Amino acid sequence: MSLAPAPPFNAIREMENHGCGRRCSRSSRRHEIAAASSPPVKGEAMTVQDGLDIQVPQPALLFDLDGTLVDSVYQHVIAWQEALATCGIELSVWRIHRRIGMSGGLFIDALSRETGVRLDEELSQRLRELHAQAYLHRHETVVPLPGARELLAHLHERQVPFAIATSGARHTAGSALALLGLPDDVPVVTRDLVERAKPDPHLFLAAARRLGADPAHCFVVGDSVWDLLAAQRAGALGIGLLSGGYGREELERSGAYRVYADPAEMLTRLEEVGVRPIR
Amino acid sequence: MSLAPAPPFNAIREMENHGCGRRCSRSSRRHEIAAASSPPVKGEAMTVQDGLDIQVPQPALLFDLDGTLVDSVYQHVIAWQEALATCGIELSVWRIHRRIGMSGGLFIDALSRETGVRLDEELSQRLRELHAQAYLHRHETVVPLPGARELLAHLHERQVPFAIATSGARHTAGSALALLGLPDDVPVVTRDLVERAKPDPHLFLAAARRLGADPAHCFVVGDSVWDLLAAQRAGALGIGLLSGGYGREELERSGAYRVYADPAEMLTRLEEVGVRPIR
Repeated sequence: MSLAPAPPFNAIREMENHGCGRRCSRSSRRHEIAAASSPPVKGEAMTVQDGLDIQVPQPALLFDLDGTLVDSVYQHVIAWQEALATCGIELSVWRIHRRIGMSGGLFIDALSRETGVRLDEELSQRLRELHAQAYLHRHETVVPLPGARELLAHLHERQVPFAIATSGARHTAGSALALLGLPDDVPVVTRDLVERAKPDPHLFLAAARRLGADPAHCFVVGDSVWDLLAAQRAGALGIGLLSGGYGREELERSGAYRVYADPAEMLTRLEEVGVRPIR
Repeated sequence: MSLAPAPPFNAIREMENHGCGRRCSRSSRRHEIAAASSPPVKGEAMTVQDGLDIQVPQPALLFDLDGTLVDSVYQHVIAWQEALATCGIELSVWRIHRRIGMSGGLFIDALSRETGVRLDEELSQRLRELHAQAYLHRHETVVPLPGARELLAHLHERQVPFAIATSGARHTAGSALALLGLPDDVPVVTRDLVERAKPDPHLFLAAARRLGADPAHCFVVGDSVWDLLAAQRAGALGIGLLSGGYGREELERSGAYRVYADPAEMLTRLEEVGVRPIR
C-alpha cells in the first residue's frame, strides 16, 4: 500500500464521516491513507468520489482493574495505611491514595522520598505482605463498579477486543477479577508477568500483544493518572474514570481523551471511542 | 471616617506595599479607604506622601476539621460505606468521598437522589448512628495532619485569631479535636450549634462571630469544595488543602484563593494570607 501526500484536513474529515466500513490489517500508523486517484492539485476542492481510502480499525480496549472495574481503591488505601502504621511509618492517607495503581516498587520509592525513611528490600517486602493481608482481610466489601459487568458483556457481544492490565499481583487481583464474570478468552496481565508496572507502558503493551492489537489502535481505560501516563508511553489513547477518586481535571491534565464518571456512563457513550451502536 | 472616591489602582497597590501598620476597627468593607488630602487630579502621579489611609485588618482564620487539621476523611468514607451496606444501599465509594464535609442532611438528600432509594427520617437517623459507630470504631487510626499542631501553635503565639467550624457532630468531632491540643480560648463550632451546615455559610458565620471578626476579613481553610463554597457564601476568602483527597483543580474551581498540600505547607506560606513573619 503506497502512501499519498497528506490530503487537506477537510477531506480526511469528510471521508471519516462517511466511513469506509471495511476492517483493515493492523498497522503502527493510527490511520492508513491511500489515494485511489492522483493527489489533488493544491487548493482544488475534494469530494468523496476522489476515493481516498481511509482505514481506521475497530479500537481494542485495555482496562485497568482497581477503581476502573471494581470499587476497591479505598480498601487498598486503608490497607496500605495499616501496613505502614504497623511498621511505624506515618504518611497522610491522601498521599497514599494518589499513589494507588502505580508500580509497587515506584510506590515504595516515592514513600521513601516523602517520609524520609530508608526502606531496604526486607522492609519493602514486609510492607507488601502486610498490605496484601490487610487488603484480603476486607476484600469482601469490594463490589463491581456500576456498569462494569454490563460494559464488558456489551463489548464481548459486539466482538470488540478487550483485555485487563493491572499493577496488582495475581493473588490480590484474583478476588476482584472473580467479581466480573469474565469470559475465558479475555487476556489478563498482572504485575508478576512484566518487568515494570505503571506508569511504565509494559502492562498495556503486553495486553495489546495478547490481543494481537497495535497499541496505536487501543484505548487504555483507567481511574488513575498512572494509567493515563502509561497509555501515553504505550502510544495509546487514554480514557479516565472518576470512580477511583481522582478529580476530572487531574485525569484531563494527564492526557485523557475523555473522562467518564464510571463504567456505567462510559457504556452510554461508547460511540465516542469508536464503538458504533448496532443499527 | 469619610470615604473618598476610589483612587487609581496603582496608588492602592503602592500604599499596600508600604503598609500602614495600624490596626483598624472591623468593618463590612474589605478595605477602608480614606484620603488625608484631596483626591488626586486624574492622570497625576501619586506618592505615599499624599497619605491615602488604607486600613487592612489582620485576617482571622476559620478552620474546617476533618481532612484539614486531622487525617480522618478516609475513615469517615469507609464508615459511611459500612453504614450504607448494613442498610442494603450500594453507592460507589468515590461518590461518598466527594460528599464528606457537607451537611449530613444534604448528604442524605444527595444519597437518595443518586441511589434512587427513598430515605425516610427513621432510615436517615439509623444511617447517621451506624456511621458514627463505625467511625468511632476506627478513630484510633486518626492522627493530626502534618504541620496542623505547629500551624495552630504559631497562630496562637502570633495572636492571629482563629476558630474551628466543622460539619461533624460534637461527639464524633471530640476525638479529633483532642488530637490538636487546642488552647482553651479557641472557639469550636460544631454541627449541632447552627441551623445549617456546609455549603451553607452558617458554621463559618458563627465561628467569625465568636471571634468578633467580620467574615469579609476571614480566610476559611478547608479540604473540600463544600468548605470553599460555604466560604464564598459567607463573604470570606477560601484556602484549599489537598489533604482531604480532592484534586487541586477542584478546589481552585470552587473559588480557592490559594491551595496548599496540607497545614505544613500552609505554615511555610503564611505571608500569602496576610500573616507577616516577625522581623
